[in-house]
Amino acid sequence: MKNPRHLILNDIGELGAIERICRLLPHSGGKIVCSTGDDCAVVRTEPNAKYDLVLTSDAVIEDTHFTSQASPSAIGHKAMARVLSDIAAMGAKPEWALIDLVAPGKMRLQALDKIYAGATRIANRHGLSIVGGDTASGRNLQLHVFAAGTVSRGRAVLRSGATQGDLIFVTGSLGGSSLGKHLHFTPRVKEGLFLNKWATSMIDISDGPASDLRHLITMSKKGALIETTKIPVSMEARMMDDGTTALDHALYDGEDFELLFTVRKDMAVKFLAAWRKNFSLRCTEIGQITPEKGVVRIIDNNRTARHLKKTGYQHFER
Amino acid sequence: MKNPRHLILNDIGELGAIERICRLLPHSGGKIVCSTGDDCAVVRTEPNAKYDLVLTSDAVIEDTHFTSQASPSAIGHKAMARVLSDIAAMGAKPEWALIDLVAPGKMRLQALDKIYAGATRIANRHGLSIVGGDTASGRNLQLHVFAAGTVSRGRAVLRSGATQGDLIFVTGSLGGSSLGKHLHFTPRVKEGLFLNKWATSMIDISDGPASDLRHLITMSKKGALIETTKIPVSMEARMMDDGTTALDHALYDGEDFELLFTVRKDMAVKFLAAWRKNFSLRCTEIGQITPEKGVVRIIDNNRTARHLKKTGYQHFER
Repeated sequence: MKNPRHLILNDIGELGAIERICRLLPHSGGKIVCSTGDDCAVVRTEPNAKYDLVLTSDAVIEDTHFTSQASPSAIGHKAMARVLSDIAAMGAKPEWALIDLVAPGKMRLQALDKIYAGATRIANRHGLSIVGGDTASGRNLQLHVFAAGTVSRGRAVLRSGATQGDLIFVTGSLGGSSLGKHLHFTPRVKEGLFLNKWATSMIDISDGPASDLRHLITMSKKGALIETTKIPVSMEARMMDDGTTALDHALYDGEDFELLFTVRKDMAVKFLAAWRKNFSLRCTEIGQITPEKGVVRIIDNNRTARHLKKTGYQHFER
Repeated sequence: MKNPRHLILNDIGELGAIERICRLLPHSGGKIVCSTGDDCAVVRTEPNAKYDLVLTSDAVIEDTHFTSQASPSAIGHKAMARVLSDIAAMGAKPEWALIDLVAPGKMRLQALDKIYAGATRIANRHGLSIVGGDTASGRNLQLHVFAAGTVSRGRAVLRSGATQGDLIFVTGSLGGSSLGKHLHFTPRVKEGLFLNKWATSMIDISDGPASDLRHLITMSKKGALIETTKIPVSMEARMMDDGTTALDHALYDGEDFELLFTVRKDMAVKFLAAWRKNFSLRCTEIGQITPEKGVVRIIDNNRTARHLKKTGYQHFER
């Protein structure tokens, strides 16, 4: 075994790093409703405030989240759409954002303009005001976006709210986002606000459905059983043609930025009727919450249940 | 003249980039009190809220804000102390922060632990709770910190509030921060909260006193006259021994993170008495606000007035 003094980030992976950081942070004080472990932190300015604040940050980094082929406006779009998706997953309303730009001094002003055009376009569409930020020179292009939203006090939808028997739903269709959706996706803000009334727990799909479902049941201290035949496999997942099945693309690909959430079983019919009245976007029941803490099982065509692989995109390879 | 299509960030410098970005951002909506152009944006969750929120973000980037010689705990300290200094400059109370970490996969976990230890130590000291963040792999170490604070509604101290005749003050002593203070400075949070009652305008000294005073009078649409004999030149500025005078270090060095602010002339005596009752930290009157829009003049030993150089640290060299 490696000497602990010599361990590096690559030895523990992104999830290991996040766990380690969480342990290092003291979380106390009456002004924090919910901290690390959700899509956003939930905080309260005063005990009688009408609204809670949700706070989130996300980075898009050249060579990690986009290649040099990506258009500047798509980069701005993605940076802003990621935090919008986080806020949507809390059932909250986007309010304000700051952008920290890191860029090489040789970057064209034309590209700068297009980055901010892409960011402001999607921000405006969802009522998010970009109110400031910072700029610094650096080796490669990075956008760090911080955003705050509001939600009625005590009404943020957390990952931890799923209970046994709840049905599991996803919006849209899944897989193959690397063909383009990862840069051009629509954050499910309207849907998230609508789901505030219905969802017992919610997360946005950034690491991949399998991985994000695991985050949700871990926080809810429950298990899940999903059915392969129900998974809404996207056209893109079927087009990937890289030796991996379309179903595996749907289950394990990251950056779909759809919403994964649970609804009480006895509310499901009413919920789906209300959904269809409000949205043309697909919404699919894919399984249900089980009592087996931390276990995600999947039933395939032959009704054989197996454990879902533990995988999904992680920074810092193990 | 260069074809505008070929202009790059280095052609316009950091301030040019910030101006350009500000023009690209639509600023509207009743929930924004004050946006770009101050140390923090000021926003309001609801018309009758007791508190306004102040929002800020800052980055510390390897090779730009620190060298590989800097200790990990000092890097964490600096990242967090910078946003604390921004919040202090608004006369606001620090509340919550998020940290976006970018690091190479080969970074030691020991270093990671020390970065967060440095960050949490200074955050705790000032009542700031680190409630989340993000991690990603990248070529060099970067910390992007987002922070939110609270201030009584309508009571944030802006850069724009200086009026003719107001006296200009600075806390502490100035210059030579590169000898160590830039990594280990104490953000003037307590002082900022105290100054909320007294200051008509305020800014923290990050780019250098000359440059930051210029930001303040620009936002206030006024001028300033300062006196060389009054500048509190630090011991470090005198120790620099690099061909630049100690006074020039005091005027033009960045990253002192002291507060520069204005107080109504008729309140100055009362203010200084109150200051001395509360703080042992030096507080020095260095000049006053004049009506000459955008002009900063300095009077030297011989009572000769000259224009202050336009300089200070800028990302993206021109």
